[in-house]
Amino acid sequence: MKFKVKGYRAAALHCGVKKNPLKKDLALIYSEIPAVASGVFTKNNVKAAPVLLSMKNIKNGLISAIAVNSGNANACTGKQGMKDALSMAEKTAFVTASAKDQVLVCSTGVIGIKMPLLNVLDGLETAGYSLREEGLFDAAQAIMTTDTSEKISFKNFKIAGKKCSIFGMTKGSGMIHPNMATMLCFILTDVLISKKILDRAFKEINEVTFNSITVDGDTSTNDTAVILANGMAGNKPINVMGKDYNTFYRNLKNTMLELAKKIVKDGEGATKFIEVCVLNAKTSKEALKCAKAIAGSNLFKTAVYGGDPNWGRILSAAGNSGVRFKEERVDIYFNKMPIAKKGVEVKFDEKKAHKILLKKEILVTVDLNYGKESSSAYTCDLTEGYIKINAHYRT
Amino acid sequence: MKFKVKGYRAAALHCGVKKNPLKKDLALIYSEIPAVASGVFTKNNVKAAPVLLSMKNIKNGLISAIAVNSGNANACTGKQGMKDALSMAEKTAFVTASAKDQVLVCSTGVIGIKMPLLNVLDGLETAGYSLREEGLFDAAQAIMTTDTSEKISFKNFKIAGKKCSIFGMTKGSGMIHPNMATMLCFILTDVLISKKILDRAFKEINEVTFNSITVDGDTSTNDTAVILANGMAGNKPINVMGKDYNTFYRNLKNTMLELAKKIVKDGEGATKFIEVCVLNAKTSKEALKCAKAIAGSNLFKTAVYGGDPNWGRILSAAGNSGVRFKEERVDIYFNKMPIAKKGVEVKFDEKKAHKILLKKEILVTVDLNYGKESSSAYTCDLTEGYIKINAHYRT
Repeated sequence: MKFKVKGYRAAALHCGVKKNPLKKDLALIYSEIPAVASGVFTKNNVKAAPVLLSMKNIKNGLISAIAVNSGNANACTGKQGMKDALSMAEKTAFVTASAKDQVLVCSTGVIGIKMPLLNVLDGLETAGYSLREEGLFDAAQAIMTTDTSEKISFKNFKIAGKKCSIFGMTKGSGMIHPNMATMLCFILTDVLISKKILDRAFKEINEVTFNSITVDGDTSTNDTAVILANGMAGNKPINVMGKDYNTFYRNLKNTMLELAKKIVKDGEGATKFIEVCVLNAKTSKEALKCAKAIAGSNLFKTAVYGGDPNWGRILSAAGNSGVRFKEERVDIYFNKMPIAKKGVEVKFDEKKAHKILLKKEILVTVDLNYGKESSSAYTCDLTEGYIKINAHYRT
Repeated sequence: MKFKVKGYRAAALHCGVKKNPLKKDLALIYSEIPAVASGVFTKNNVKAAPVLLSMKNIKNGLISAIAVNSGNANACTGKQGMKDALSMAEKTAFVTASAKDQVLVCSTGVIGIKMPLLNVLDGLETAGYSLREEGLFDAAQAIMTTDTSEKISFKNFKIAGKKCSIFGMTKGSGMIHPNMATMLCFILTDVLISKKILDRAFKEINEVTFNSITVDGDTSTNDTAVILANGMAGNKPINVMGKDYNTFYRNLKNTMLELAKKIVKDGEGATKFIEVCVLNAKTSKEALKCAKAIAGSNLFKTAVYGGDPNWGRILSAAGNSGVRFKEERVDIYFNKMPIAKKGVEVKFDEKKAHKILLKKEILVTVDLNYGKESSSAYTCDLTEGYIKINAHYRT
């Protein structure tokens, strides 16, 4: 299948940041027309140099090109790190004939080690010559670190009769936690939309997708999620809320939710995908906070890994969330099977519960019966695999 | 070695809460004279029935007896749970001839399962007959769950010429996290001290000991730390700050720090003890917050497990703490060896760093160079062992 979005080209290659020459480590993404751009970045106080630079450039509102390397995060690298990020940005602008402040640079990988800058600059030179419409899939591969496969989502839809597309690519794996997505994500669309409306949609959807997932509770120094909209679909501009906006919103949300779930499914060492759905909280914010607290509990995640229907850990994690509820009103379900009612265990078939927990995808529903708002968080189980990957990441 | 504190007796036995008949699961602690008492309890919104009951009784200020069972937490057990806790308290008062509201009950173990109450009541009956001065060590064994050994601390000291003693016992292992100690801890002393002064010392010391440790970030429904002071040492009453208070404070702090460290060292699956010392933060609260954020990072803890000097994860975790500092001022040391200076890696011997991280006890120092206040947090590494223990805790 070929993924194409009008006006976008990409290239990907191995330039030598990663040791393994068979692994791509550099991607270049280019829009023929400077695209309206919106972005969200890590809230970590320690921000990598490329993040600081990209945060600055995206304020201009228009972006033509994005350079991404994997294998080195260019984080905790001091003044030299910023110099390197600037060099990367300059070279990106040069090879794509873009304005210097209309490019973004992103890095992901090991922290605290100087970038092999010459490799990256040489790589960008080559990438500039190799840009092609069919390059998006390759780019999605080049941004991977411990990901076991590329993560993409592609949608075609119509806005007032005009064919539009959205292509999203992301990388995640470890260090995935709300606030913010703790990953890289690039979404490219040809929809014509105003900056203000794009910002609104992107930030709102980000809260219930990338900010609702957790792998290990650590938030990285490099998280970046960006959307470009170059308007080449030629639709009537989306300047206000309404039918066209809703169509775009729905498709963007599906794209981002799909990508967010793919990150969780490929969490380091993960063997199961878990949705924690909190029903009937006082506010939707509290519903999400509670869902995230459960999804983030090591004890809960290891219990799911072991297929142990230890529902008390769910209630205990909810109790730690700081969210308002009364223990004696809480109902808990695994998939649709009731495990606890009004805060107390119901008689359930342990074998059946165990069997549910052995599935690849599990829905844990926690009905607080305390309000009317609901929300979901997404996570994976915590396994020996996570330990193995992270104990020797650099060595 | 015999541990005796004037006026205290204890008994311990197997009553049938735990399956294994060789494992003690019930402890009874008794003070001949009602003791001045102070306590701190879990901040989890979901509190076990015995916690609610003990919180109420300790407000009276005097406590004569404490009953503790292990194997069942009597948490998430609804109205029946409170009935069971009340029965346990009544029986405890009866067998020790104490006032009904001068007893504490504590439970630890699996959540969400009804207490085997008759076993506990029968056990208390027997325990009442078996109370003896030398019983403290046995009691420390009876409160264990996944702990691999009993955790005690014993100090003799003098206050104005009078011999005084402090005996502390604790249990921990999983679910250990600040706010609060997420464990059970009982401290018995014969010092004569006012309730007000005891409260002050106990709560203050609790912050920098039990509230500064973390194993997995989960806070339990049952955490309880209690101190009894029965005054039988016959010292001049400690009613004000001063020399006598300082002597008591120092000994109590050493006791509690020793116990807190023992909990961490015996963290589920732990192979290493890690002290994270944050120097020169803006406030001591921020120093502690930053130290805890680092100590609580799964990525940091797995890196230490693997002996991987991945210092960037330390800086990244500090960045997530919300504490004020500037990346470019931060120095990081493993034991005394500098790893990063001013936020950037220094040339260090990777082999030597790896060797440090392979030790059983590791000191990670993070000098923020941003203020004058310092604090430490204590944790252990995160290993496959943690996963194994918790994946199948109930099954």
